[in-house]
Amino acid sequence: MKTYSKLTMDEVWYIYGEDLRRVEEQIRADLKSNVPLIDTISTYIFKSGGKRFRPLLLILTSELSGYNGNARIALASVIELIHTATLLHDDVLDEAHIRRGNKTARMLWGNQASILVGDYLYTKAQCNIVSFRNHEINEAVADATRSMTKGELAQLQFNSDLSITEADYLDIIGNKTASLISTACRIGAILGESPVDKKEMIESFGWNIGMAFQVADDTLDYVADKKKLGKTIGKDLQEGKITFPLLSLLQRGSKDEVSIIEQVIRLSDFSEGNLDFILNLMNKYDVINYSFGKAREYVEKAKKSLLLFDDSAHLQALFAVADYVVDREL
Amino acid sequence: MKTYSKLTMDEVWYIYGEDLRRVEEQIRADLKSNVPLIDTISTYIFKSGGKRFRPLLLILTSELSGYNGNARIALASVIELIHTATLLHDDVLDEAHIRRGNKTARMLWGNQASILVGDYLYTKAQCNIVSFRNHEINEAVADATRSMTKGELAQLQFNSDLSITEADYLDIIGNKTASLISTACRIGAILGESPVDKKEMIESFGWNIGMAFQVADDTLDYVADKKKLGKTIGKDLQEGKITFPLLSLLQRGSKDEVSIIEQVIRLSDFSEGNLDFILNLMNKYDVINYSFGKAREYVEKAKKSLLLFDDSAHLQALFAVADYVVDREL
Repeated sequence: MKTYSKLTMDEVWYIYGEDLRRVEEQIRADLKSNVPLIDTISTYIFKSGGKRFRPLLLILTSELSGYNGNARIALASVIELIHTATLLHDDVLDEAHIRRGNKTARMLWGNQASILVGDYLYTKAQCNIVSFRNHEINEAVADATRSMTKGELAQLQFNSDLSITEADYLDIIGNKTASLISTACRIGAILGESPVDKKEMIESFGWNIGMAFQVADDTLDYVADKKKLGKTIGKDLQEGKITFPLLSLLQRGSKDEVSIIEQVIRLSDFSEGNLDFILNLMNKYDVINYSFGKAREYVEKAKKSLLLFDDSAHLQALFAVADYVVDREL
Repeated sequence: MKTYSKLTMDEVWYIYGEDLRRVEEQIRADLKSNVPLIDTISTYIFKSGGKRFRPLLLILTSELSGYNGNARIALASVIELIHTATLLHDDVLDEAHIRRGNKTARMLWGNQASILVGDYLYTKAQCNIVSFRNHEINEAVADATRSMTKGELAQLQFNSDLSITEADYLDIIGNKTASLISTACRIGAILGESPVDKKEMIESFGWNIGMAFQVADDTLDYVADKKKLGKTIGKDLQEGKITFPLLSLLQRGSKDEVSIIEQVIRLSDFSEGNLDFILNLMNKYDVINYSFGKAREYVEKAKKSLLLFDDSAHLQALFAVADYVVDREL
């Protein structure tokens, strides 16, 4: 099996550009309401970027499954509304100042408005979903949103708690990230009326690239330059989120090194010196490469899930997306 | 038409006590999860009280419609989960310290956990609803939750804004309160497979007692003693919420009186003297009685909606609930 797709990600964005433009129009239409605050805030967020990664996956998997009707556009919008709702709540939870290089909604309109517009996007998405009157889609989306909240709550529960295991971490990111991405893919397969086995393959593809996406994201938190991702290095650590690279470091470090890291976290003492100490240890134990390797393992699993599909532009596009998930910022 | 029901509210609680106990069991079962924080917080909230007013209505309206199967218990639980989710978010929005005489969840576990457990309850409710595979119920609940968020956002948008009209206020409380109560009633009618006209009558009953409930609640905010409701007098005013009694006062007061009230709100200067000034004016213009009168108008409208139903214990119970909505604390 090839490691890389025949298509580049630029080609994928180009080929499916018209579909994604229709999704943008749909999002704008979905956000119309008679409460000005909803329009102001949601327009701000949707204009401030986001790659529409989940809508793209829904479109690609529905095309792969032989469906190219309008529902794929409407449901792609819905998935992005749900994703955005969680970002609004996340920014309140994390007291975030910046998202995608712009001020967060909570910095401009306050936490109250951010919580409520998050709730609104979520409930509006729900209205749109149930209007399709497809039980399988209803259940897939309800399950995904419940998983997302469970994942966020488990993450909160493990905040700054070094008893967290790799299994706990993987469970958390499975719930908070992979569930919605796999559901976006599953919806594509449902729209195409795929048989059960193919639905499962497509869902498994989504699950694995969701896992890859989050492991890569958590790894980038320790390497990305500030400008590129609009993030500070080690932000997760400072928020008490113990992610894959840190867990790997704790497994590899000497007893003394681990005990210093534990103290830094226990005391929440994230001085530049302490952060440098941890980053240097990550370098020493090659933790970043190892973590990206873990993410790539998920990418390969994702691709393998689709082995039984005939080759097509849509399949190649899905492979390109899978590669992109890890290699987007390297 | 009689003004009062043949049943007292105590009799209603007694007659439907077994059903409500089953709802409590169902709520407990629905809250089981493998994330300890969910159990801890949700158990705390559900144990700390609440009259289960919405579940009672769902049960009564389904009985009135000839349905007494298990789905009414399961869906009554779901409606209470949704209601509780909004309370959790409301307490964060209002920075509330006390609810039902107990510390709010946010005071004990923080805003983050309160937001997320709110999200969890909401998404769990969604999972349960869609599992019934009834499109009409799906759509009714999705509409209601969207309305609730719209109402909350409109209320936030009008915070401390004296340009709010009575129509704006009624629109807000219709969305934030009456929509879920009318949906609880509508679900009862749907379960009983009522014809369209009866569904509408039952929904209209719910809508009007929802309106009555909120107008009464907003009025009680200016009269209730602290112990009885766990509230401070004029709390809404201090939070910038301009409700029915204040709007009535602004309509009745002299130009000078109104201009002083406007200044108090503009400066958020809620000294005891200023609050007393406003409470005295409410007394002078008999605003509290007028407001309760408005609430009772809605109660009468609610009862009239059910005129075409044959008399029965269930109908009498619904009338008792309608009366109770306004007269619960007087």
